[in-house]
Amino acid sequence: MSFKQPLSLSDERFTAVYQVTGSLKEAAERAFDICVEQTVEFPIDLIHREDIREQVVGEVLGVESVEADRHLATIRFAGDIVGGELTQLLNVLFGNISLKPGIRLVSVTLPDTMLARFRGPRFGLQGLRSLTGIAGRPLVCTALKPMGLSAPALADIAYRFALGGVDFIKDDHGLADQAFAPFSERLKRITAALRKAADRTGRPCLYMPNITAPSDQVMARAETAKDFGAGGLLIAPGITGFDTLRRIAEDDRIGLPVFSHPTMLGTFTAHPESGISHGVLYGLLNRLAGADATIFPHFGGRFTFTKEACGELAKSATGPLGGLAPMWPVPAGGMSLEKVEEMTQFYGTDIILLIGGNLHRKGPDLTRNARELMERL
Amino acid sequence: MSFKQPLSLSDERFTAVYQVTGSLKEAAERAFDICVEQTVEFPIDLIHREDIREQVVGEVLGVESVEADRHLATIRFAGDIVGGELTQLLNVLFGNISLKPGIRLVSVTLPDTMLARFRGPRFGLQGLRSLTGIAGRPLVCTALKPMGLSAPALADIAYRFALGGVDFIKDDHGLADQAFAPFSERLKRITAALRKAADRTGRPCLYMPNITAPSDQVMARAETAKDFGAGGLLIAPGITGFDTLRRIAEDDRIGLPVFSHPTMLGTFTAHPESGISHGVLYGLLNRLAGADATIFPHFGGRFTFTKEACGELAKSATGPLGGLAPMWPVPAGGMSLEKVEEMTQFYGTDIILLIGGNLHRKGPDLTRNARELMERL
Repeated sequence: MSFKQPLSLSDERFTAVYQVTGSLKEAAERAFDICVEQTVEFPIDLIHREDIREQVVGEVLGVESVEADRHLATIRFAGDIVGGELTQLLNVLFGNISLKPGIRLVSVTLPDTMLARFRGPRFGLQGLRSLTGIAGRPLVCTALKPMGLSAPALADIAYRFALGGVDFIKDDHGLADQAFAPFSERLKRITAALRKAADRTGRPCLYMPNITAPSDQVMARAETAKDFGAGGLLIAPGITGFDTLRRIAEDDRIGLPVFSHPTMLGTFTAHPESGISHGVLYGLLNRLAGADATIFPHFGGRFTFTKEACGELAKSATGPLGGLAPMWPVPAGGMSLEKVEEMTQFYGTDIILLIGGNLHRKGPDLTRNARELMERL
Repeated sequence: MSFKQPLSLSDERFTAVYQVTGSLKEAAERAFDICVEQTVEFPIDLIHREDIREQVVGEVLGVESVEADRHLATIRFAGDIVGGELTQLLNVLFGNISLKPGIRLVSVTLPDTMLARFRGPRFGLQGLRSLTGIAGRPLVCTALKPMGLSAPALADIAYRFALGGVDFIKDDHGLADQAFAPFSERLKRITAALRKAADRTGRPCLYMPNITAPSDQVMARAETAKDFGAGGLLIAPGITGFDTLRRIAEDDRIGLPVFSHPTMLGTFTAHPESGISHGVLYGLLNRLAGADATIFPHFGGRFTFTKEACGELAKSATGPLGGLAPMWPVPAGGMSLEKVEEMTQFYGTDIILLIGGNLHRKGPDLTRNARELMERL
């Protein structure tokens, strides 16, 4: 019968490395289980089609012990099972096995043919340097808060920070479309305030409104932002899904830099024995989806990322990845002026410093606070 | 100045209970930290506006010890900070604190005014009973697999299972739009096969295609499914985001039953000290978003959910929730015919039995295998 014609997948393959806990024997069994669970999800002894067993089911390339109860399993999957979709790539990499504790996705290697299907960061390191005209120092971003302020009050803060010379001002990620500061009014007021500031300083400060929103409104908010002359966009893939970030970043009608916020993603990296590594989650996935900048908690702030995790993340954000542009690391989370030097020593100067609440600490003159920060760079 | 006009939020409030690890003193500190981190995300000593401190910042209602190092903190938030959006509700409930290990969201209580903004399950328990015309027994669903089969081959399997009398046939959640079984062709072939089967059996078997897809294609797939006469839809909010599920479920032009799949959500429930409880994640959030059925791993299958977790989940799926309809629990994950009795004893008969690969185990006559299952009910 025609429907029994043999499968002939292309020879495109990608690999994923999973850290598996347990004995080496258990790890080998679990590695094979991942091959099945993430593809056919079907009792292997009941698959009578040899072509499916050989081409669709993942293949264990090796299991290597890191410690007595921790092993790295490298698994190869056929590119064709992804069907060119980021959503299905996520599903193959870490879908059902997220439900099985003791498995952590630690790295992913995609062939150039698969990477070429992603646009990646539209601006990336060079693009944001060109757009801002700033060379040789970190870029600087602050956030509009606290939630509860009206749009005019937020615009006033934005104006004062812009006079102090910061490069970007983003919405706090909790600013959505609340009645006390509706999205459209924020756009109108804050972009106007920043144009006024630019008239005085002679250089632009880019506003990145938060477009994390209901599924049917994300694109409309991006368009509103574009119409009002926003300088970029902030979105949280942990809430909207990574593919919504991709859609916004790839849309040529929008064409704005996109910052990715880590809210609600933290559980994936909270436990070293399960979830997804910092490099894959905040680095690779954001970059595939086209984020120009990835915000994450710098070690030593009010969150608990380790130095190693931050280093791995930054490397994944900026290291070689086919033809995809490198993405800006944005270490944040309770950062202060005093940490700037430590941060640039650790990451280098190709970072965006995100300093939020603490930029209010030096006193009520926000312009002076911002200027003091800028002079340190 | 006008932008300093005082805030006046409505008196709508909702509460969330977080399990916090550490000493009681630490837990009390962390509870207050949640109040700040999830709202203003700003150093509290720098908030000079009393109205914001009093109305926007969350409020600790109590901290109760469960064990020496495990405590339950009840926190009250203003409804207005959510702005009527599920995305921002998720952000307030578990956004940035997902990045802080040792905090688990265990329950959420929304007032009726907030619940009334969600449509919830369109069909729910009663609606799917009416739609299928089946009373007094569990409904039965199977899944089309393994991945790699062509659309005609999947349609052939669907036809044979439908002749055996199952109520629903869903796509395996790994079926996306791969070249070996493209979405449109699956829809065309499988709906045709099920119409043919219905002509013979005299009763319908509903097909639920997987519409987990890129952000800009989810709605188009739902429409294609509707056009071809699919009986429902399968979607994975862990990949698309919960609000995409809500959008699809609430859309009156679609108007089909929606099954929610747990792929990629598992990390949230993997560690008892962090993430989100089974009841909130697979129960409440799916139900708010409008899922008619929530698929999850039944204890004792090939996943590791406990009996308690499954019970909590089922209770959250079906218990009182304002005017929202109850949602079907769909225990699954390596289920077999032998477990049916145990499952109905545990959950009652208002469940959908999802038996996938194991329905192939009794032999190649899929119609007979399905019939044997149906006769057990």
